[in-house]
Amino acid sequence: MIKKDITINDVEGFKSIGIDAKLRKEKRENLALIYAKNGAIASGVFTQNVIKAAPVIYNMKNIENENIKAVIINSGNANACTGEVGYQNTEIIAKNIAKHLEIESEEVLVNSTGIIGVQLPMDKILSGIEKICTEVQNHNDKHSIARAIMTTDTKPKEIGVELELDGKKVKIAGIAKGSGMIHPNMATMLGFIVTDINITKDMLEKAFKPTIDKSFNMISVDGDTSTNDTCIILSSRKAKNKLIDKEDKNFNKFKEALEYVNIELAKMIAADGEGATKLLEVNVVNYKNEEEAKILAKSIITSNLTKAAFFGADANWGRILCAMGYSGVQFTPNTLDLYFKSGKGEIKVFENGLPIIFNEDKVKEILLEKEVIVIADFKTGEHSATAWGCDLTYDYVKINGSYRS
Amino acid sequence: MIKKDITINDVEGFKSIGIDAKLRKEKRENLALIYAKNGAIASGVFTQNVIKAAPVIYNMKNIENENIKAVIINSGNANACTGEVGYQNTEIIAKNIAKHLEIESEEVLVNSTGIIGVQLPMDKILSGIEKICTEVQNHNDKHSIARAIMTTDTKPKEIGVELELDGKKVKIAGIAKGSGMIHPNMATMLGFIVTDINITKDMLEKAFKPTIDKSFNMISVDGDTSTNDTCIILSSRKAKNKLIDKEDKNFNKFKEALEYVNIELAKMIAADGEGATKLLEVNVVNYKNEEEAKILAKSIITSNLTKAAFFGADANWGRILCAMGYSGVQFTPNTLDLYFKSGKGEIKVFENGLPIIFNEDKVKEILLEKEVIVIADFKTGEHSATAWGCDLTYDYVKINGSYRS
Repeated sequence: MIKKDITINDVEGFKSIGIDAKLRKEKRENLALIYAKNGAIASGVFTQNVIKAAPVIYNMKNIENENIKAVIINSGNANACTGEVGYQNTEIIAKNIAKHLEIESEEVLVNSTGIIGVQLPMDKILSGIEKICTEVQNHNDKHSIARAIMTTDTKPKEIGVELELDGKKVKIAGIAKGSGMIHPNMATMLGFIVTDINITKDMLEKAFKPTIDKSFNMISVDGDTSTNDTCIILSSRKAKNKLIDKEDKNFNKFKEALEYVNIELAKMIAADGEGATKLLEVNVVNYKNEEEAKILAKSIITSNLTKAAFFGADANWGRILCAMGYSGVQFTPNTLDLYFKSGKGEIKVFENGLPIIFNEDKVKEILLEKEVIVIADFKTGEHSATAWGCDLTYDYVKINGSYRS
Repeated sequence: MIKKDITINDVEGFKSIGIDAKLRKEKRENLALIYAKNGAIASGVFTQNVIKAAPVIYNMKNIENENIKAVIINSGNANACTGEVGYQNTEIIAKNIAKHLEIESEEVLVNSTGIIGVQLPMDKILSGIEKICTEVQNHNDKHSIARAIMTTDTKPKEIGVELELDGKKVKIAGIAKGSGMIHPNMATMLGFIVTDINITKDMLEKAFKPTIDKSFNMISVDGDTSTNDTCIILSSRKAKNKLIDKEDKNFNKFKEALEYVNIELAKMIAADGEGATKLLEVNVVNYKNEEEAKILAKSIITSNLTKAAFFGADANWGRILCAMGYSGVQFTPNTLDLYFKSGKGEIKVFENGLPIIFNEDKVKEILLEKEVIVIADFKTGEHSATAWGCDLTYDYVKINGSYRS
């Protein structure tokens, strides 16, 4: 697997574009399109929230289509809690895209992120759609789409890799936006991955869904899951590799590369959580089963007390222990070791279920880094899990406490 | 039921005292004793955290004793994650109390709150125990015990009521300390209720435990549950009411008064959450069952986004809806109405599953109050639940992000 500056535009069968359709106050792209002229197979993972935005409901139906040709994304408005009008607007968007690109509306997926409870500014969106459909064929800024889907994100999130399957090149490229919450209302986590791998729809789904459980489902910015969370993968199947139709060696290579792409995007989201000053990684290792290891890791990463302690570079192992203790997992702490680790080194602070004396200056130096790792080693099994998050800061409160107006 | 300035000392059969045993930096009481010379029956509820402090493990065993005569509480150190030495220290404390009060060590309950992972300063505690046991008989400051159990609490929490059962007076008095987290490590929620009601141990437990589910179990400061959370009730059975040995009219009157006491203490804890500027109350009403109504109410009260919005007096109904949506409860929002309410009035912001236009000035006025209520009216059943919490503020991050040293 080679990590390259590969964007959606570099993957055969796809064009991408982001334009400013005046949907947000900031002067930046805010309407995005992925266009697969000859169609793509797709798979998607959608929010578990009972309250689902109109485009999510729309996509959950259309994702089964064997031939997706366009994915439209607007920022600035989530089209959530907007009732029947909101759903009709989603359909109108799909129809307009279809008209301008001369495709079927069932071949369009629609995504929105931004304020909830307000109807989409359809006049601006429809003008934007006309423009974006015209310009997509000859658009040269490969990074404009990653900017267009941003809301409170402070930087665009994109990554691409290339791999070889029996000597044939296959590309994967992805973009994402953060789970932080938009001023004035909630936003969402969105991820879009494209690839040219020659694979069946079944196998694409089989590769994709487990990688979500190890990436986007293992991050937490504030524990809140939104009405619009969506991650979609598309494949143009233009690569020359032998068709993957079972879980063979090439399938595994692809899945591994996909997991890398998704984890990197997920980490970018965690590190760019609202107000965050650092990326936290939690490794629960040598535990008796993976499912519980995941629960333990996520309980630590979502604990406000732990997150606030990391903001203060405080080696507060007690909060980590406590967060595992109330996670619902029944464990015995008497084999547990805890470590803090970063670019400045690694230090053990807890051993076999008991606190130990450690060098406070050293631990402070470790915790002041921008990326900090917590290791919980249970020494009782062969399973591990990793979760990512960020610290809880003054700026988180500031951003989320501010008035909607 | 009459609400009076009734303290533990006013309830027949009990003496209480708080002294400064130099266990904390602040110059304030930090060692507390409840003394029931002629014994009391007891019931307790303890933390669900897998990691339980030594005194919690000790109490879970001794609470079954029919004759509790002393309850000791120290602040400043939680005696959690302290291994066998910690448990032995708990036993030594009980033995010393027993020696000085000339009772059995099995008749003592032991409670600790404060820093975790550090052994108790036994020299100071043992000196304190000698002093407290000597002074308890002739101590006059009825409020010293409520101060002695405080950690990061900004004010003591106490309440008392008197009720009449068939013309006979019965008293209930309680104290509590907050679930906020102590500098430098986690603290805990502690509650101690005493009464003189003539009741069997079985019936005392039957009255007590359900009131916990409606009070202390319905508050959230930061979603973290600690290693030491404990609530204990004692009855001296000195009141002249006819013995309560079944769920009769008098049992229900007592239970109702007990629920009032526990809810008031729980609300004091929520309002005094670390860094909190206001008390939030969430009422989920007219829902189809109580269990799910509770889950919905607690999901709102623990949402960081909702809590931060209330700090900013922001009428962000979208976050409330979202928090219910990810609670795990499957509901349909199409009958749901949302209201904000306070001393300044009440306003509807969401109706039958859709946002409505509301007066922004009015809602701001309502939300700027110190006590704010959210009402989620589902109009689909007869069950309700109430939860309490506080806003998420800069000071929460400051208190919990600060260094341990």
